[in-house]
Amino acid sequence: MTEHKVEFFPHQREITVEEGETLIRAAMEAGVHINASCGGEGVCGKCRVLIEEGEVEGGITEKLSQEDVDKGYRLACQSKVISDLKVRVPIESEIDAGVLNRLSTPRKTAKIREINLDDWKEKGLFIPPVEKKYLELPPPSNDDNVADVSRIVQNLRNTHGEHRLEFDLSVIRKIPDILREADFNVTVNIARPVRAEGKNRVINIEPGDTTDHNYAIAIDIGTTTIYGQMVDLISGKVLAQYGDFNAQMSYGEDIITRIVYAEKNGPEVLHKKVTETINGVIEKIAKRSKVDLDQVSTITLAGNTTMTQLFLKINPRYIRRSPFVPAATMYPPFKAADIGLNLPDHVTALVYPQVSSYVGGDIVAGVMGSGMAHEEELTLFMDIGTNAEIVIGNKDWLVCAAGSAGPAFEGGGIKLGMRAAKGAIEDFSIDPITLEPMNLTIGNERPKGICGSGLITIVATLFETGIIDNRGKFNTNLDTPRIRECEDGHEFVLAWKDMTSIDRDVVLTEIDIDNLIRAKGAMYSGCMTLLNEIGLSIRDIDRIIMSGGFGSYIDLEKTMTIGLLPEIDPEKVTFIGNGSLLGARMSGLTNRIRSDVKDTLSRMTNFELSETNSFMDNFMAAMFLPHTDLELFPKLRKRLEERQKNNN
Amino acid sequence: MTEHKVEFFPHQREITVEEGETLIRAAMEAGVHINASCGGEGVCGKCRVLIEEGEVEGGITEKLSQEDVDKGYRLACQSKVISDLKVRVPIESEIDAGVLNRLSTPRKTAKIREINLDDWKEKGLFIPPVEKKYLELPPPSNDDNVADVSRIVQNLRNTHGEHRLEFDLSVIRKIPDILREADFNVTVNIARPVRAEGKNRVINIEPGDTTDHNYAIAIDIGTTTIYGQMVDLISGKVLAQYGDFNAQMSYGEDIITRIVYAEKNGPEVLHKKVTETINGVIEKIAKRSKVDLDQVSTITLAGNTTMTQLFLKINPRYIRRSPFVPAATMYPPFKAADIGLNLPDHVTALVYPQVSSYVGGDIVAGVMGSGMAHEEELTLFMDIGTNAEIVIGNKDWLVCAAGSAGPAFEGGGIKLGMRAAKGAIEDFSIDPITLEPMNLTIGNERPKGICGSGLITIVATLFETGIIDNRGKFNTNLDTPRIRECEDGHEFVLAWKDMTSIDRDVVLTEIDIDNLIRAKGAMYSGCMTLLNEIGLSIRDIDRIIMSGGFGSYIDLEKTMTIGLLPEIDPEKVTFIGNGSLLGARMSGLTNRIRSDVKDTLSRMTNFELSETNSFMDNFMAAMFLPHTDLELFPKLRKRLEERQKNNN
Repeated sequence: MTEHKVEFFPHQREITVEEGETLIRAAMEAGVHINASCGGEGVCGKCRVLIEEGEVEGGITEKLSQEDVDKGYRLACQSKVISDLKVRVPIESEIDAGVLNRLSTPRKTAKIREINLDDWKEKGLFIPPVEKKYLELPPPSNDDNVADVSRIVQNLRNTHGEHRLEFDLSVIRKIPDILREADFNVTVNIARPVRAEGKNRVINIEPGDTTDHNYAIAIDIGTTTIYGQMVDLISGKVLAQYGDFNAQMSYGEDIITRIVYAEKNGPEVLHKKVTETINGVIEKIAKRSKVDLDQVSTITLAGNTTMTQLFLKINPRYIRRSPFVPAATMYPPFKAADIGLNLPDHVTALVYPQVSSYVGGDIVAGVMGSGMAHEEELTLFMDIGTNAEIVIGNKDWLVCAAGSAGPAFEGGGIKLGMRAAKGAIEDFSIDPITLEPMNLTIGNERPKGICGSGLITIVATLFETGIIDNRGKFNTNLDTPRIRECEDGHEFVLAWKDMTSIDRDVVLTEIDIDNLIRAKGAMYSGCMTLLNEIGLSIRDIDRIIMSGGFGSYIDLEKTMTIGLLPEIDPEKVTFIGNGSLLGARMSGLTNRIRSDVKDTLSRMTNFELSETNSFMDNFMAAMFLPHTDLELFPKLRKRLEERQKNNN
Repeated sequence: MTEHKVEFFPHQREITVEEGETLIRAAMEAGVHINASCGGEGVCGKCRVLIEEGEVEGGITEKLSQEDVDKGYRLACQSKVISDLKVRVPIESEIDAGVLNRLSTPRKTAKIREINLDDWKEKGLFIPPVEKKYLELPPPSNDDNVADVSRIVQNLRNTHGEHRLEFDLSVIRKIPDILREADFNVTVNIARPVRAEGKNRVINIEPGDTTDHNYAIAIDIGTTTIYGQMVDLISGKVLAQYGDFNAQMSYGEDIITRIVYAEKNGPEVLHKKVTETINGVIEKIAKRSKVDLDQVSTITLAGNTTMTQLFLKINPRYIRRSPFVPAATMYPPFKAADIGLNLPDHVTALVYPQVSSYVGGDIVAGVMGSGMAHEEELTLFMDIGTNAEIVIGNKDWLVCAAGSAGPAFEGGGIKLGMRAAKGAIEDFSIDPITLEPMNLTIGNERPKGICGSGLITIVATLFETGIIDNRGKFNTNLDTPRIRECEDGHEFVLAWKDMTSIDRDVVLTEIDIDNLIRAKGAMYSGCMTLLNEIGLSIRDIDRIIMSGGFGSYIDLEKTMTIGLLPEIDPEKVTFIGNGSLLGARMSGLTNRIRSDVKDTLSRMTNFELSETNSFMDNFMAAMFLPHTDLELFPKLRKRLEERQKNNN
């Protein structure tokens, strides 16, 4: 991949980006603000920049006069980097280059960790849960008229060294005809047992050689959103991904209201709703990946305890009542079709086990996905979702806790909140003088709403520029039409109606900010309370692993600015994306995970945050941006002080 | 049980019977003929006998004049033996006592073998497939809020020494509510693995202590009839039994026509039909035994290969075509409800394995039921049903073969054939002079039809008295209205219309006799061909085990008279009733059978009778009563010669 150096003036900021990246995203990454209302679609025409050296591809539209074009002006959002560049950004406000440089903070993205199949193979950790074997069988004759299944067993034993085989009834039904249609050349799917002494189950048979088509589905059953991936079991690659809001949302946004509903009406309706959403996700990823569902071998699902019980049609009523008892922690594998999933009869469903009523399979999957349970380093694992779930530990011990954060991180409970999908504002910057925003959306489309990562970035930016105070309230003294009164307090117009795709302004309200503060407060105070309970401080932590469904990256400095993360060396932070989905995918790829998970589970000690005296105090203290005690965020304090000086 | 001696005059026959037995059945057992048209219901009034010494209970009806009663006459069918007796039978025909004695042959019943649970327990063979454990659990508290399943696992481990437990999803669904409804005092059903290292599956949970209610269902899926038993897993006793014609019968009486149907139309319809019949049988035995189906743990089914495949919805098309390949020999356990059986979700279905396309699970079950695979003695096992199935061997080796006998043994293909149910003529004798019959029916009701064992007895008796010849044709020179022409040849009236319950005569036709001869010919010639193939003769056989669904006993001499069995010391013959059902029941009682069956199966060598040159010759030679070569039946020949002398 070719890379190019881009220098921005007058900021004197320099950044290296991959060839083909748009100039506006390069600017955002460098921390350089360029006015941009339309999300990067090229319609607002505000992101005019002057190319002083080097060349870009595109960037010339009717928004620019011929004169401007001749001078070297381009629209940053439409220009692709194809050489080293020097770019000048027209600054409307009265601000000097030194200040601009200080104001612009390059994005500190968390390292992203991904599955490395070759590495697994090297370490002997790659034990595919389902393998395909191609058989060329001798046809039966009068001298050799053993049963069809026996013929397959003999060949698997003699040619492939397979033993302890068991055939599913649904496969036996298909065998006689398929053998004869395919001239006795067939492929069988063998599901491996988790324990070495278990049976190898033949779960499917196909005519001909299909050994290069073997897929698994991974699903994260979130309270707010459900994500699915189609995984190629041969390359380990994700072929398609899709997410959708959990259709249970119409029965309540949080877990408690869903439990109350199930208690009153039984678990059936909510079971049906979540199954419908999962089926929709499956349909979408199958279509996108062009995978025939007949060639899917397994589906692995991870969700919190309530989501898991509702999916399995087990009433979660006792989860809500002291002493908070879940039905089970482990579930046996079962036929996916039996639970209502639109998958062929041979597909086995695996559900991630739970620790307790409030530390569920999603977090166990995240822990498995993070690998923290096998490493020396003391790790703080945070799953940033509707439930604030926290695990601390290493290969020797693990403690965990969970609380409710609400759906804000996933765009839930936010006036114009949305999933991380096309049109969602995912990145944001603001001109501290003109208060003109720079909105970057997923897919560079006109803004439609705000996703979780966008919300964090917007709130952090508004706070750091003094547009909102540490309680999340707008500074109404500012002279801008973008801050205005609304039903419940004030709101900020991120994009005017004519620049959005929803025929109305995209706004951020004080209620939205409140919800985010409550969510990050729950997360932060959970971490602090748990650390405190085990007698450690954040300084003892070697690394933080963040997990969450909000987009593909997260700006670490912004998460520290709002007080979601404590201030820690960004190098110590890794982002694994949707950890629940990652763990589910890993289980689909190797049985090693399934055999490890029981051991890991037994080492996870659960703390009930609500039973510790300090939790409420910690929570209340964290209900500010970034926190009541600014001493805990010394770098931010320094930045705030410096800007204060500049403003004066 | 009190027994009494009954002497019959002028026959000078003596027999010991249990108190309460009817006099007419005592006479039948002693080989003493008493005219009786009405099956023992007391309406024909023909069975007048004189009680010369001792006392009977009952036997006085309006069919007897007061004068007769005063003299000591009683109706034999209505008189119960309550003391030692001397009984005089009025003989209408001119025949002296010596001849009478020679003519009357006491019934030589085969020894009946039954399950002896205490014996199994002593030998360590009793390993219940499903056991119940009663748990008194401590309720959860804040200090002990493990998951409900974990609570059960802990108690099972610590109090009952149970390990390697796995819970079915359907059980987990019930656990939370049942625990709380029952104050945490519950009973769980644990299904044992066949292999010691397998998992112990918790398949059901019930409130309170239900350890004394644990049941299994055994089913024999016959081509013609389906039998079921409700088995008490604690006592080992059969609580109820019921049989019904297989509803597939309307799609063809034999296996081949059913396969042809399935080949054309798919297996679904025949699958549905057999499942319906089984469901009917289950309903009946549940009702009769008053067992709640919720307390049934397993259902074990045995059937021939085609019946098994149709039941499992596997097209049996390739069974019919050379080289006669079945789909599988072994099937995994599965959920009974999944196949359409009206049983609760927790009930596991086990299907007996097959040897080949024509040696099926019914015969494997019979072999397991007979115990022959574990014994030193060289055994000939004959399953007398629609398929003539034969196994020869001992603990070292086993050979088997099968051919088609047709449904005659089960009352199929017989004009007035019926299952062994109330009203079926099951025993028969005839006055050689007057040709007046003695019909005894199941339940002592008016005759309705003829069951398999009755058919054998009637044909044997008619042959031995010269009423039919060795080709099964009636001697039309005899002066009796009971022999008359009918559509296809001649028939014999066993009971006149006014004595039957079907408003028409109960008859036996020459076609019926043909069908029986063909059936017994297939059975006998199969045995002889197989013996011949392995270089043995009938003299090498230490014992014969007969299996078949026709009533609870079988008159051995009669089976030799028609040439179904070779002439062999009756002491060497054991009858195990429906062997397939017995094997299925045994599998339901102890896992020992399930672990043995695989080994037994691997030792069973299959012979294709149709591929041996001698089979057709043997079959043709056996198409007579008893056989072309009377030398093979020396005792019968001697009897026939003696009677010939008496007649002249």
